[in-house]
Amino acid sequence: MAHYSFITRHTGNTAFETEIGKHKVVMDTGSDGDDLGPSPKRLLLGTLAGCTGMDVVSLLRKMRVPFSDFEILTEADLTEEHPRVFSQVWIVYRIRVDEQYRDKMEKAVNLSVEKYCGITAMLRKNSPVEHRIEYL
Amino acid sequence: MAHYSFITRHTGNTAFETEIGKHKVVMDTGSDGDDLGPSPKRLLLGTLAGCTGMDVVSLLRKMRVPFSDFEILTEADLTEEHPRVFSQVWIVYRIRVDEQYRDKMEKAVNLSVEKYCGITAMLRKNSPVEHRIEYL
Repeated sequence: MAHYSFITRHTGNTAFETEIGKHKVVMDTGSDGDDLGPSPKRLLLGTLAGCTGMDVVSLLRKMRVPFSDFEILTEADLTEEHPRVFSQVWIVYRIRVDEQYRDKMEKAVNLSVEKYCGITAMLRKNSPVEHRIEYL
Repeated sequence: MAHYSFITRHTGNTAFETEIGKHKVVMDTGSDGDDLGPSPKRLLLGTLAGCTGMDVVSLLRKMRVPFSDFEILTEADLTEEHPRVFSQVWIVYRIRVDEQYRDKMEKAVNLSVEKYCGITAMLRKNSPVEHRIEYL
């Protein structure tokens, strides 16, 4: 069974640095801190994009679909009351693929959001997650 | 109502860069990629540490509790089947505080995990999240 284990250190004021293998990522807040990194909750939304994006890249390669200019817009509304959680999440996949491959792109996205992306699956237990594709 | 909106770009092979305000964070995979950044799911666990860590720092300051050497160990087990989600999460708060302030440290941690930390609240809808404090 896979197991994750790592340390996140307080580096001063409101900043924290998480050390994941050889990679270090700083998080902070701009509201009562020094804005040295993204806020944890925004970064969480970024991990959703990374998770589903990597699935889609892997699936398009397996299906031998040429693509370029791939980016993902993520958006979230937050609740007013504490704990402030996402009340709705949107994922927009923007990509350049030839029209003949669009059904495969739709299949790749559906496989990610329905079957493979663990972060989508976890966040969906908290709020709706909608998605769509925009072709460039 | 607070709303988040930002772009995460595919930068080549399996790597993605999320751009949150002025901050950029790279995510990647080492398994079939170039390991240019942490994996999204590990980074998600790091955002949990950042979220609750910032709460605890803010609360200890409000309670005028002196502290140092604050770090957070996060651990997670993952399911075998797809989508691979956390089946259990652990948070260990390691901190140096004088013995007279330990009840306040416990209060700060409980307020974060029960009331303030939105990431704990979201992840708890998917799996149990246990926590404990280790005093240095």
